[in-house]
Amino acid sequence: MIEQENNGYIEMDYAKIDTDREERTGFAEVIFCKGKADEHLVTIFEQIFTRNGEVFGTRASEEQFALVKKRIPQITYDPVSKILKYEKPGKERIGNVVVATAGTADIAVAEEAAQTAEYFGTNIHRLYDVGVSGLHRLLSQKDVLQQANCVIAVAGMEGALPSVIGGLVKNPVIAVPTSVGYGANFGGVSALLTMINTCANGVTVVNIDNGYGAGYVATQINRLAEGKGE
Amino acid sequence: MIEQENNGYIEMDYAKIDTDREERTGFAEVIFCKGKADEHLVTIFEQIFTRNGEVFGTRASEEQFALVKKRIPQITYDPVSKILKYEKPGKERIGNVVVATAGTADIAVAEEAAQTAEYFGTNIHRLYDVGVSGLHRLLSQKDVLQQANCVIAVAGMEGALPSVIGGLVKNPVIAVPTSVGYGANFGGVSALLTMINTCANGVTVVNIDNGYGAGYVATQINRLAEGKGE
Amino acid sequence: MIEQENNGYIEMDYAKIDTDREERTGFAEVIFCKGKADEHLVTIFEQIFTRNGEVFGTRASEEQFALVKKRIPQITYDPVSKILKYEKPGKERIGNVVVATAGTADIAVAEEAAQTAEYFGTNIHRLYDVGVSGLHRLLSQKDVLQQANCVIAVAGMEGALPSVIGGLVKNPVIAVPTSVGYGANFGGVSALLTMINTCANGVTVVNIDNGYGAGYVATQINRLAEGKGE
Amino acid sequence: MIEQENNGYIEMDYAKIDTDREERTGFAEVIFCKGKADEHLVTIFEQIFTRNGEVFGTRASEEQFALVKKRIPQITYDPVSKILKYEKPGKERIGNVVVATAGTADIAVAEEAAQTAEYFGTNIHRLYDVGVSGLHRLLSQKDVLQQANCVIAVAGMEGALPSVIGGLVKNPVIAVPTSVGYGANFGGVSALLTMINTCANGVTVVNIDNGYGAGYVATQINRLAEGKGE
Amino acid sequence: MIEQENNGYIEMDYAKIDTDREERTGFAEVIFCKGKADEHLVTIFEQIFTRNGEVFGTRASEEQFALVKKRIPQITYDPVSKILKYEKPGKERIGNVVVATAGTADIAVAEEAAQTAEYFGTNIHRLYDVGVSGLHRLLSQKDVLQQANCVIAVAGMEGALPSVIGGLVKNPVIAVPTSVGYGANFGGVSALLTMINTCANGVTVVNIDNGYGAGYVATQINRLAEGKGE
Amino acid sequence: MIEQENNGYIEMDYAKIDTDREERTGFAEVIFCKGKADEHLVTIFEQIFTRNGEVFGTRASEEQFALVKKRIPQITYDPVSKILKYEKPGKERIGNVVVATAGTADIAVAEEAAQTAEYFGTNIHRLYDVGVSGLHRLLSQKDVLQQANCVIAVAGMEGALPSVIGGLVKNPVIAVPTSVGYGANFGGVSALLTMINTCANGVTVVNIDNGYGAGYVATQINRLAEGKGE
Amino acid sequence: MIEQENNGYIEMDYAKIDTDREERTGFAEVIFCKGKADEHLVTIFEQIFTRNGEVFGTRASEEQFALVKKRIPQITYDPVSKILKYEKPGKERIGNVVVATAGTADIAVAEEAAQTAEYFGTNIHRLYDVGVSGLHRLLSQKDVLQQANCVIAVAGMEGALPSVIGGLVKNPVIAVPTSVGYGANFGGVSALLTMINTCANGVTVVNIDNGYGAGYVATQINRLAEGKGE
Amino acid sequence: MIEQENNGYIEMDYAKIDTDREERTGFAEVIFCKGKADEHLVTIFEQIFTRNGEVFGTRASEEQFALVKKRIPQITYDPVSKILKYEKPGKERIGNVVVATAGTADIAVAEEAAQTAEYFGTNIHRLYDVGVSGLHRLLSQKDVLQQANCVIAVAGMEGALPSVIGGLVKNPVIAVPTSVGYGANFGGVSALLTMINTCANGVTVVNIDNGYGAGYVATQINRLAEGKGE
Repeated sequence: MIEQENNGYIEMDYAKIDTDREERTGFAEVIFCKGKADEHLVTIFEQIFTRNGEVFGTRASEEQFALVKKRIPQITYDPVSKILKYEKPGKERIGNVVVATAGTADIAVAEEAAQTAEYFGTNIHRLYDVGVSGLHRLLSQKDVLQQANCVIAVAGMEGALPSVIGGLVKNPVIAVPTSVGYGANFGGVSALLTMINTCANGVTVVNIDNGYGAGYVATQINRLAEGKGE
Repeated sequence: MIEQENNGYIEMDYAKIDTDREERTGFAEVIFCKGKADEHLVTIFEQIFTRNGEVFGTRASEEQFALVKKRIPQITYDPVSKILKYEKPGKERIGNVVVATAGTADIAVAEEAAQTAEYFGTNIHRLYDVGVSGLHRLLSQKDVLQQANCVIAVAGMEGALPSVIGGLVKNPVIAVPTSVGYGANFGGVSALLTMINTCANGVTVVNIDNGYGAGYVATQINRLAEGKGE
Repeated sequence: MIEQENNGYIEMDYAKIDTDREERTGFAEVIFCKGKADEHLVTIFEQIFTRNGEVFGTRASEEQFALVKKRIPQITYDPVSKILKYEKPGKERIGNVVVATAGTADIAVAEEAAQTAEYFGTNIHRLYDVGVSGLHRLLSQKDVLQQANCVIAVAGMEGALPSVIGGLVKNPVIAVPTSVGYGANFGGVSALLTMINTCANGVTVVNIDNGYGAGYVATQINRLAEGKGE
Repeated sequence: MIEQENNGYIEMDYAKIDTDREERTGFAEVIFCKGKADEHLVTIFEQIFTRNGEVFGTRASEEQFALVKKRIPQITYDPVSKILKYEKPGKERIGNVVVATAGTADIAVAEEAAQTAEYFGTNIHRLYDVGVSGLHRLLSQKDVLQQANCVIAVAGMEGALPSVIGGLVKNPVIAVPTSVGYGANFGGVSALLTMINTCANGVTVVNIDNGYGAGYVATQINRLAEGKGE
Repeated sequence: MIEQENNGYIEMDYAKIDTDREERTGFAEVIFCKGKADEHLVTIFEQIFTRNGEVFGTRASEEQFALVKKRIPQITYDPVSKILKYEKPGKERIGNVVVATAGTADIAVAEEAAQTAEYFGTNIHRLYDVGVSGLHRLLSQKDVLQQANCVIAVAGMEGALPSVIGGLVKNPVIAVPTSVGYGANFGGVSALLTMINTCANGVTVVNIDNGYGAGYVATQINRLAEGKGE
Repeated sequence: MIEQENNGYIEMDYAKIDTDREERTGFAEVIFCKGKADEHLVTIFEQIFTRNGEVFGTRASEEQFALVKKRIPQITYDPVSKILKYEKPGKERIGNVVVATAGTADIAVAEEAAQTAEYFGTNIHRLYDVGVSGLHRLLSQKDVLQQANCVIAVAGMEGALPSVIGGLVKNPVIAVPTSVGYGANFGGVSALLTMINTCANGVTVVNIDNGYGAGYVATQINRLAEGKGE
Repeated sequence: MIEQENNGYIEMDYAKIDTDREERTGFAEVIFCKGKADEHLVTIFEQIFTRNGEVFGTRASEEQFALVKKRIPQITYDPVSKILKYEKPGKERIGNVVVATAGTADIAVAEEAAQTAEYFGTNIHRLYDVGVSGLHRLLSQKDVLQQANCVIAVAGMEGALPSVIGGLVKNPVIAVPTSVGYGANFGGVSALLTMINTCANGVTVVNIDNGYGAGYVATQINRLAEGKGE
Repeated sequence: MIEQENNGYIEMDYAKIDTDREERTGFAEVIFCKGKADEHLVTIFEQIFTRNGEVFGTRASEEQFALVKKRIPQITYDPVSKILKYEKPGKERIGNVVVATAGTADIAVAEEAAQTAEYFGTNIHRLYDVGVSGLHRLLSQKDVLQQANCVIAVAGMEGALPSVIGGLVKNPVIAVPTSVGYGANFGGVSALLTMINTCANGVTVVNIDNGYGAGYVATQINRLAEGKGE
């Protein structure tokens, strides 16, 4: 495989690594690990790690961790969020984003969001298990929510949390439906529909279990709020 | 048309009026007006009015009101709930059921529930426009909710209201999804799924816009709570 | 992990155990075991067992049973209902709730409902395999159904059982769709739609396979009927 | 337009009337009126009437009745079933098919089934408004059901009627879901799924509101039962 | 467990075997094996075998075969159709039913249909792999199709076979959608919708992969055609 | 409104007419009339007519015809296909495309396809009402089908026609599902799924009722076949 | 009707106007006009206009405009966006938000978004008819997109626009699916799914046709970017 | 099993190999391996290999490769595309078809398409990982796309690639949705709907993951373009 870089990407036949991305969007490329062939995965990790001095992958398995570790010994793996990363030491974080979950089972997705935002330089405040069936737990944290530049609200089952938070705060709420639940939750569709149909203002939605996407947008908003948008 | 009554029903060829129902279930027959042919509707109203001295129809149109009024001049019509009824004067009402709505547009369904329960002898406390995007409106009425034998929670759009109420009260919550909303609400399916997937305990669900069904079950529960179940 | 209790909950970082719940709703917290991390599960069982002297978990696996048993040797496990519990001896049960199933395969869900209600102090009468394709089996038990404060009707496939029972009794019917069936049953959606669209009065519905939810509501109704609602 | 008949059909450019059908299937062609252009409709009625001395159309409107009547004055129209037909006088009918409905609103579809079967020479016994929420009405007619060569069971809402009838009889049950209902009935899909998932044996299903299809199959079965299948 | 038989069924606590069925419907009870607990399955097989001298189960696994064989050594198992049965020797078969499939992968379902009908005494003619993409294979068998009392048409993917057969024959076509296919076939829903929406007359539909149901109805029709309906 | 043309389009504020399209794709811009504001529609018709000397719009209403006629008196309207066009006289047509329909009600969509392809210079052979329930009509035209460069197969209800044609011909079949039908046809979804899941080779699919899209692709294929692709 | 204000809302029986909202969220209450009873609508407009000196309603009809105009003569109505408003003169607008549409038919929704954001004090740059089938139109405006604090991307049919824009810009993209299209667009569901499944980063989604929601969130982000978030 | 060949097929009881196909359609029969019984699979491979001197199977597993290899040692297997084939050496390829993918995970489906077309004699140009979120990668290859007789565009997630390519080229685009993605992608339905609703012209769609079907149609078009259609 002859690799060449021009037109703003590295040609690898089976992939075209977008080297223009950081210039264009302000974010380095992140690797979605699930479903990638072993050799492809390892090479892409190496390419990005060599160029950037750090690397970040989502939806990684224990097996993929072992494979990548052989080439990049510094790499670390978090089995809850399934994030496989090496982060430059001493990176500064700015601003204030809250990540809230309705239940304990939503934490895997919430951690994907939180650690993505942290990797991109955002301060995160975690607020877990504050679902609407015991409202006093959420209301006791109202100040925390109102001080954030942005709130990521993660919920499965009926997914009502973002609607309630949306009614309490000034700044945007990113709603993340999760596949947590059973029966007529349809793998997260129920929570997705709840969030899309919310009566609260200031709520936008990402795909089911898409913690990464929420962490990315929250970083964009947080940067703008901290005067680092441009 | 030769009408005969035996086997616990009146044979009318196109209908079999269930005269055994009151004995069996404790509730007189109610007429679902929508889609009934004019002559059928009028005859069924007369049959029941003659037998019972009162009569109650749901989903009636203005035109059906005019038709029935010609035969039963005492009949009254409420254009909000679309209920067409004549109720015996001086009926006693017992117990305490709350009917709550998320928004103003849910009132049509809520009134169907409330007036059904009232017709069957239940005291109703109305609590309208207490949706979760402005939670202080609901929380200021917590005592009212907690004193009810049963709460009927009516909501469209994302339908989060029953989950929040379910977390606040001791007694059953009957959740009624409404078709209020637009876009991905799918005529009420979004709210229905929210309610079916609720993380709160004590919540059961009826069909979209089925105020009548909620009023009926609330009456059953209220009667049991007041010692009138048997 | 520093645990603290205030604002009505125990803060455990990954969970906030709702200690105010019993006061607020009259029911102790129950543990949904499925999907919980091992260490979280065990700690939550211990916390609740220590506070309450008894504990009740649903959707538990054999492996979870083994784990919890190491810390709480008295715990017992029922592989049919997948309930993992220790119940205080000598608890009184009141009232009368019938749990009926359409077929044999619905018994797992029915037992979750029955044992939940029993844990919360309700007398249960089981009536299994009385589906509508052999109606004489159900009709021979009409008296049993009519004497209950509430009937829980559990059915998969076409889910017609609650409609038929609803037409026979005075008191509320809680319909539980199950995922039993194949083909166009869509994991229980067919039975759910049947029950939501029932032509019978007095029927409300919970999520697919949600025996726990049905047992909870039946207990609320049974308490009200026995004058223990408040 | 030059019309020619060969290859077993009449070529009309916009239609090819299947003149081989009666030979092949034992049934004359029937006209589905809805959506046909006026001139096309009238010409097709004339063509078939001229060839066969009788003609039968389904889903016709009052306007279409008026149009066809100008060319075929003998034609009659039934606004309930929306059937537009002229039937040769003195036709013999054989056998015994029951058409049952759950409610009054299902009669329109039931009449399409009944009159189709009658047109094709079948004796029909009508049994209307015998839905499962008042089971005594159906059970009082058990003998009638058991004597039929075939039962057409027509139901909307939750569509449980065919399951109950299927458990009572020896011969085939043709289930016809109707679009009667509201909310999560999805225009008849709920009833269709109920019938497709029936736990009863001997039940097969046709399209929502397809009374014609049910009447046709019932006629096939009735002819076989009466020794007129070949 | 004390077993008793009265009211037309054997009470086994977890099951009520419908002993009145043969009298009522003309068919002995058949066992749906999938999902039954081992002990329940074995006991039900024994009960029916003892009473009837033969027994028939569908959707059985190899493991269930081994279990039942310990108690009923004569039992046989067909891994294609997953039927587990013992049939009385020398049973007479009557009439003529064709079972046709679109492809080779549909044979598993077709054999469930064919062997069910054979168990109930029907002569079966198998016609496999005659799908519409190579129409000459089907058309070369037109005589076979036209001589049957009833045709069972089994197809997955787009499910067009019953429509084409329906246009060729006089007698009823039972359409069986299968879950064969991939992508937007939705586990057989695509074929089911095709069959429900067929433009051909004389076609009725059973659940996805429900070979048993088709074999049962075909037997009913075949009996009527052979004068054995009553 | 100041209009300017550069970057390959005419800027009209509410629209950007793509003047580069003919160069890029070989096809002039066509106007989708439905939903356009009156003034917008008329101006866009004029702009294109002025530039090209001809113009072609789909999904037009009678009212839109009247409006456009005031500005472009030569314009003609076909109420069946709802096409509003003025075509340069004496245009040459090449090649051979067949447009086939299953029924008479599918002709509206078929004409949109046929006239689109004719406008773009393609010879069309129409073959209407050759649905699979009377297969002899289709088979009598096998030669016509096999000589086409491409077949457009238009069908509603169960949509089986393209599968059957796909098995008979060498060249591509463009399948167009229509919304013709009722009940579980879901506005054409049933036919769409049938076509997407076809077991026949050489079949590709366009949107429901999208005659225009089919006519466009058929023209592309026809041009390539006639050596006019480049 | 006795109106009282306390607990942060005005009690109007059928509505509870949330007077605490501006304090809590930084946005005054906006009126969703569709479905409101005439008298309710007019009174709510008056209440808010009296308190705030300006008022803003969405989804209003011409009839509602006429009604409100009788009480608030200054009110204006835009038939494209269906916005009914009176805005204080001389309001300052800040920042920079782009509203882009794929086609002309999406402008109605885009204007709801644009005018909402303008009402709340945001500078809007409109970029209409830049859909992906003529990519040069969009690419010629790349600079405009890259300078915005936030882009609102409005698209129906296949809804690909936000994915393409997301790949070009640094700041958040709010995706608004519209119901524009036909056939398998399912009233906007197709576009909604496209947007939710986007492979581009920085894209979040609101409900179908929810221009208001997009304008609200864009204002929140724009305020943060301009240092007016708190 | 006695095999016979007549009527244009080989009768094998469980299969009817369509030997007339090559004559009728210009393409030899291809084997869909998934779900075939081992013995059936091996025999069918042998039959076709013996007749044609080459053979081609799709969706094969490693196990099936091993089985077939015992009988046909020359057979080769590609684990990415899951194609199991033996191709006559020295086959000529004609024309020019581009196969493009949005991402790396779509390559499995793309290779099924590419190798199918190559087997049938088509030149393929591969263009992988050119998804719309980094548009410069696609635009740098515009010339390649515009020179193809046909483009196969393969994409999962939101599936926008075919719309963008459709706007750039003169010749047909075959869109292949893949099941790549997660959450609300519904196993490829999201991409399928995007492609069916495309605003671009010249795009037709095949089933989810149906690389084979796309390679087949592309070959038909390529042959026509190269004057080898007949």
